[in-house]
Amino acid sequence: MLQALAAVDIHRYPDPEADGLRRRIAQWIGVTPDMDMLGNGSDEVIQMILMACGIPHGSVLMPTPTFSMYGIAAQVLDQRPTEIPLTQEWALDMPRMLEAMARQQPRVSFVASPNNPTANCFADEAICELIQAAPGVIVIDEAYHPFSGQTFLPLLEAHPHLIILRTLSKIGLAGARIGILLAHPTLIKDFNKVRAPYNLNAYSQAAAEVFLQHWSLIVPQIQEIIRERQRVQERLTPMPGVTVFPSQANFFLARFAAGGTRVWEALGARGILVRHYPGEAALADCLRLTVGTPAENDLLTTALDEILASLQPQLRTMA
Amino acid sequence: MLQALAAVDIHRYPDPEADGLRRRIAQWIGVTPDMDMLGNGSDEVIQMILMACGIPHGSVLMPTPTFSMYGIAAQVLDQRPTEIPLTQEWALDMPRMLEAMARQQPRVSFVASPNNPTANCFADEAICELIQAAPGVIVIDEAYHPFSGQTFLPLLEAHPHLIILRTLSKIGLAGARIGILLAHPTLIKDFNKVRAPYNLNAYSQAAAEVFLQHWSLIVPQIQEIIRERQRVQERLTPMPGVTVFPSQANFFLARFAAGGTRVWEALGARGILVRHYPGEAALADCLRLTVGTPAENDLLTTALDEILASLQPQLRTMA
Repeated sequence: MLQALAAVDIHRYPDPEADGLRRRIAQWIGVTPDMDMLGNGSDEVIQMILMACGIPHGSVLMPTPTFSMYGIAAQVLDQRPTEIPLTQEWALDMPRMLEAMARQQPRVSFVASPNNPTANCFADEAICELIQAAPGVIVIDEAYHPFSGQTFLPLLEAHPHLIILRTLSKIGLAGARIGILLAHPTLIKDFNKVRAPYNLNAYSQAAAEVFLQHWSLIVPQIQEIIRERQRVQERLTPMPGVTVFPSQANFFLARFAAGGTRVWEALGARGILVRHYPGEAALADCLRLTVGTPAENDLLTTALDEILASLQPQLRTMA
Repeated sequence: MLQALAAVDIHRYPDPEADGLRRRIAQWIGVTPDMDMLGNGSDEVIQMILMACGIPHGSVLMPTPTFSMYGIAAQVLDQRPTEIPLTQEWALDMPRMLEAMARQQPRVSFVASPNNPTANCFADEAICELIQAAPGVIVIDEAYHPFSGQTFLPLLEAHPHLIILRTLSKIGLAGARIGILLAHPTLIKDFNKVRAPYNLNAYSQAAAEVFLQHWSLIVPQIQEIIRERQRVQERLTPMPGVTVFPSQANFFLARFAAGGTRVWEALGARGILVRHYPGEAALADCLRLTVGTPAENDLLTTALDEILASLQPQLRTMA
């Protein structure tokens, strides 16, 4: 990778089409090279979708809780997020989703599967039903696909209003900011009209090409994370006062009866930084725990054991 | 630079504030660290300005011809470019600019100085008058400042509606995509609300820090380009049928009586790629010639000598 970075002519503008990388990504994913477009991370890709397909004050549909950038990007562009809460088990509330599609006529609908931060995949049938019903474009964000295997790629060709998102950020290249938009070639052509010509810097293009050339080295790492996910789940599940939601991603959402903020603070005091969601009612007392290396996972679960043991007596005292 | 790239933890997300680079850039430019924000090239910075300050169908003022991204970005965001032609000598048409500001009440006005592709700086007094008169924010794009020396930085503190753009793209780091927005701290705070958190990849952050650490190595290169600009001008000016416009940038705009497209094609056949402007009436028969290394400049001017000599007889035959 360093050799490739050394070979970059950094005083020249990057390839505006990112042709080499784009072709390699198309081949890696299994689509034709006219079916992908790259962005400066999924964040930029999401913004391009809303710029190309949305209208001021138009509805942008999403189940919640979900990846925050859908709503933020919509608001920045003066579009109106229509948020439909997931069920208590983090499933899609299909009657309400379908009703919102019919009533609000969203120009863009976002569905992340596996969903962030709930970690679960939504049912294939439910997503297919939404794809059929969507009045505008529908975006299935498969950012965590390498950890779930679920994909709606085979539907792309017959559904020119379907967009699938992928990323290199979850599998080893977060610092390079490579977001991937997959869609029907006619849609890709239109998206390229709103894409700034040099949106992908030369270093990231070069590094990502090398990364994908060595994909066979990455696969075992993904398999290890999936194995570790199982092991972390087995350690978290029996912990007292912990509700662990099923995960098909590289993280867990867990609810702590001892109080999400207190556990978050106690982990932080031990140098373990996880995501918490203060002020989000649906995620009250929830933390997002990333699956790391075996050593990191041991550290996390041991820390949680100790923290929960020390917090339980306090709970009893308070009660 | 390679050492810095090797030290990047590419599997981690980049510093969302680009704090190290941002502080170094502030120091390099001579502003406080709360007065700059970075973008994925000026393209993204321009887009963020329009997202933060513009409104759907609102006017975005710019003299033309100028950098095409102002108009493109406005259109992508459903905003309305108000284009005021420059005078025949590429000066700002002040009565019309001021009238447009009063009548159209542009939320954003763009003025590039040196202007691209005309290569000239606009008069200090004219720009100052526009800064006073602007009803919304006014953006002075100083992308080519290193070759002109002209700057409106001292006005930033007293004018919270003034934005100055800089870039590392014209001085050696085009592949890294580092655009710089300079403004009053209150404005920077608001712009950060529309900036996606990880908009600057980790490699570019690392490389640009090293680049600026070695700024003293870059200065002589800029001085050489300025010297070469003089030499290229002296070679272009006496050429028959060539109008060379004065340049304070690292390129020339030149008009060819023999026909812009014909000269462009003949240069292309010799492997010399320059910018032409088919379909832009104000730039009819104009080419943009970048000042390169002494050897590149010799190649270009010798090629032009030969091409013009071969085209002149044809012109006579046709007449």
